[in-house]
Amino acid sequence: MKTLKVQLLLTGNELMTGDIVDSNSAMIAQQLKELGLEISRKVTIADHLEGLSEEIEDMAKRADILIINGGLGPTVDDLTAQALAQTISKPLTLHSDALKHLEQWAERRKMTLSKANLKQAILPEHCDIIANKKGSAVGFKVNHHGCDIYCTPGVPHELKTMMLDEIRPEINLTVQQFISKHQLPRLIYDVSRLQVFGLGESTLQTMINEQLPLWPDHIELGFRAGNPLLEVKLTIQSEQGLKEKEHWTEQLSSLLGDHLIDEVVGEPISLAEHVIKQLEIKNKVVSTAESCTGGLIASMLTRVSGSSSGFHAGFVTYSNDIKEKVIHVPEEVISRFGAVSEETVIAMAEGALAVSQSDLTIAVTGIAGPTGGSELKPVGMVWVAWGAKEDLKTACLYIPLERRSFQQYVASMMLDLIRRELKNSQETPHYIVERKFSAKLE
Amino acid sequence: MKTLKVQLLLTGNELMTGDIVDSNSAMIAQQLKELGLEISRKVTIADHLEGLSEEIEDMAKRADILIINGGLGPTVDDLTAQALAQTISKPLTLHSDALKHLEQWAERRKMTLSKANLKQAILPEHCDIIANKKGSAVGFKVNHHGCDIYCTPGVPHELKTMMLDEIRPEINLTVQQFISKHQLPRLIYDVSRLQVFGLGESTLQTMINEQLPLWPDHIELGFRAGNPLLEVKLTIQSEQGLKEKEHWTEQLSSLLGDHLIDEVVGEPISLAEHVIKQLEIKNKVVSTAESCTGGLIASMLTRVSGSSSGFHAGFVTYSNDIKEKVIHVPEEVISRFGAVSEETVIAMAEGALAVSQSDLTIAVTGIAGPTGGSELKPVGMVWVAWGAKEDLKTACLYIPLERRSFQQYVASMMLDLIRRELKNSQETPHYIVERKFSAKLE
Repeated sequence: MKTLKVQLLLTGNELMTGDIVDSNSAMIAQQLKELGLEISRKVTIADHLEGLSEEIEDMAKRADILIINGGLGPTVDDLTAQALAQTISKPLTLHSDALKHLEQWAERRKMTLSKANLKQAILPEHCDIIANKKGSAVGFKVNHHGCDIYCTPGVPHELKTMMLDEIRPEINLTVQQFISKHQLPRLIYDVSRLQVFGLGESTLQTMINEQLPLWPDHIELGFRAGNPLLEVKLTIQSEQGLKEKEHWTEQLSSLLGDHLIDEVVGEPISLAEHVIKQLEIKNKVVSTAESCTGGLIASMLTRVSGSSSGFHAGFVTYSNDIKEKVIHVPEEVISRFGAVSEETVIAMAEGALAVSQSDLTIAVTGIAGPTGGSELKPVGMVWVAWGAKEDLKTACLYIPLERRSFQQYVASMMLDLIRRELKNSQETPHYIVERKFSAKLE
Repeated sequence: MKTLKVQLLLTGNELMTGDIVDSNSAMIAQQLKELGLEISRKVTIADHLEGLSEEIEDMAKRADILIINGGLGPTVDDLTAQALAQTISKPLTLHSDALKHLEQWAERRKMTLSKANLKQAILPEHCDIIANKKGSAVGFKVNHHGCDIYCTPGVPHELKTMMLDEIRPEINLTVQQFISKHQLPRLIYDVSRLQVFGLGESTLQTMINEQLPLWPDHIELGFRAGNPLLEVKLTIQSEQGLKEKEHWTEQLSSLLGDHLIDEVVGEPISLAEHVIKQLEIKNKVVSTAESCTGGLIASMLTRVSGSSSGFHAGFVTYSNDIKEKVIHVPEEVISRFGAVSEETVIAMAEGALAVSQSDLTIAVTGIAGPTGGSELKPVGMVWVAWGAKEDLKTACLYIPLERRSFQQYVASMMLDLIRRELKNSQETPHYIVERKFSAKLE
């Protein structure tokens, strides 16, 4: 299909030395994708005048739209304006709009403009200025060999605002003109995202293949494994897809069951935020009694603003002695059954409930490793308990991950179990079956 | 100076759509930097046969060394071998060494090779195979227009091992031959790293400018702001620099004082690891009583393997009620002075010490926000206490950061204060002066 050719030129020594990792081009690509455009080629070069100028010339000949990122700063190695001026054979001149922007920027900061700063207003003659709401360097634009060349700042948050507010709307116009000129179909780009916990990417893919074998091609499925949530992305780019969206979203939701946490609207929220929200709605308070997760569950909950309504007390009982003293786990329970046992985790849960007077609790005791394991109780084994006093549930799982990943997985899993408890879920989560410790022993 | 020209070609649709951020090229750049080489140009393109082949041809003409990354997988959009074969006008043939590697790889996984897998052994005729210890796709190498072309896998840990064990030694040989052929001076590349807590990059730069004005150009200073540690990197690339290294490292260390945690040898270790190590050496145990940090300090400590020797008990006392019940903060202290007060933080510390029978403690109570602040006690205000029962220290600080950053900063700071306590430091840390709450009120 006929389309606009977009290329990207990144400049900066720090991009070449490995001192920073480029995240700008992914952001630009995602912005453009929503306009139906793809970047076909990207070149990254060091700050070198001749090299930069030659590359601009070459790329302008190949592309309809060229976005240049970086090299707008005040120092001598910021060469974009100079290189562009050389490529298009125009002199550099002081732009009064850019100067005014610099003066206002300095005034807000109560500082005087240095000679170095002024350099940021000296740009190729007759170029269009692009506003920068977040920083000192304005962007600018020229057309060369029929290619729209946008020069943008390298600072990520400056670039993002400039892309969203200035450049994207302008490129969108270009796209619309292109579409109407070539009589192309209207652009469809519909994305929805589902947050899932407790199913891996390949497990879910297999489930879909087996149980929804007729899943249509025009509803593209993408998976992004977050930590700890999996984001399932449905992308639709056709009229047919739009028509069938509701039906297939429902099919997928029912396949996911309670592994589906929510549809993402705007910024995704964390598992802990879901729990805090549900606690507030149900007017319940949860407490924690942690051994091997060492406070991580409490920390995840209290990261959430407003968590004080649903969480009052966390006990990090890292030694046996503290389990006894603080949450009253009987000494004989530990000596008879061991610190990692169903009896101990129940006693921890009951103690936490009693001391904190909370409605619900989460208790965890296990072997995070890398040391401390034995043949019967290996590293990765963990006893967990959760729920209310009259309805405490327990499970023994085997999670043989590296220490930090073990802690994060267990903490996230406990938040998910409390989330399910709060919604009175009757389903057994996939991970409780898959990761059952007894399954390991078989 | 005469040098080898190195270019990098990255391929993969996922790099163009913004679905993943490229971290491979930073890793490659750092490996090459240690051989004295810099990447002068990097091109990223989608998986497209003609485009790929043309780009290889163009880059091979410009460079002495070309590293191609990605496109070695088993699927139809992995096109590197095919594109390279086309560029150098050789047929694709089955390489028996690559096939043997694939068979061994499959055997270790108890799986049968599919036809798709076999594709990974079909490579340009007469190319050299490069071992892949971590994955199924071998790398391969040809020389074209006098340029060494290395084809490498896109999976980061496979690439890293291949770079370190196979490609880097080979490129190093090329560099040595180049140096001796052109009679260039021997390569010097000496890096040392210092871990610092409590000084920002610009503060430290200003201190160096003012107090070590004669800092030599041939000892290059670099800063990498980690979270929470700042890494100061000293890079030396001359004989003169090597001679003066010891003198200037001492000058810098004495300027840093106890803000200097340690020199980094190998993988950097975390602030919590330093604390756990010191606790073990001094045979001490620390406890925590956390309100606004909500368990984060306990979690940071217990992330460290072996932390059970120096940490037994953490109290997350998020409500006033729990402060009273669990660590015996008298009700009248809270009602008279408030939950965020010196009296309360002292009572929390004393309670934690008494209940846990630990040698040292860390207590924190403050307003993490975004809500809950008042004019006298604004968001960002925090009372902290630390040390042993007979020598408890307190401070009131103002840390107006976003909730999560506030929690992380305060937690890291408390670990640093305990680290200083354990080494009997007599210095006042920069942050205690800079961030004093009273300074805010003035």
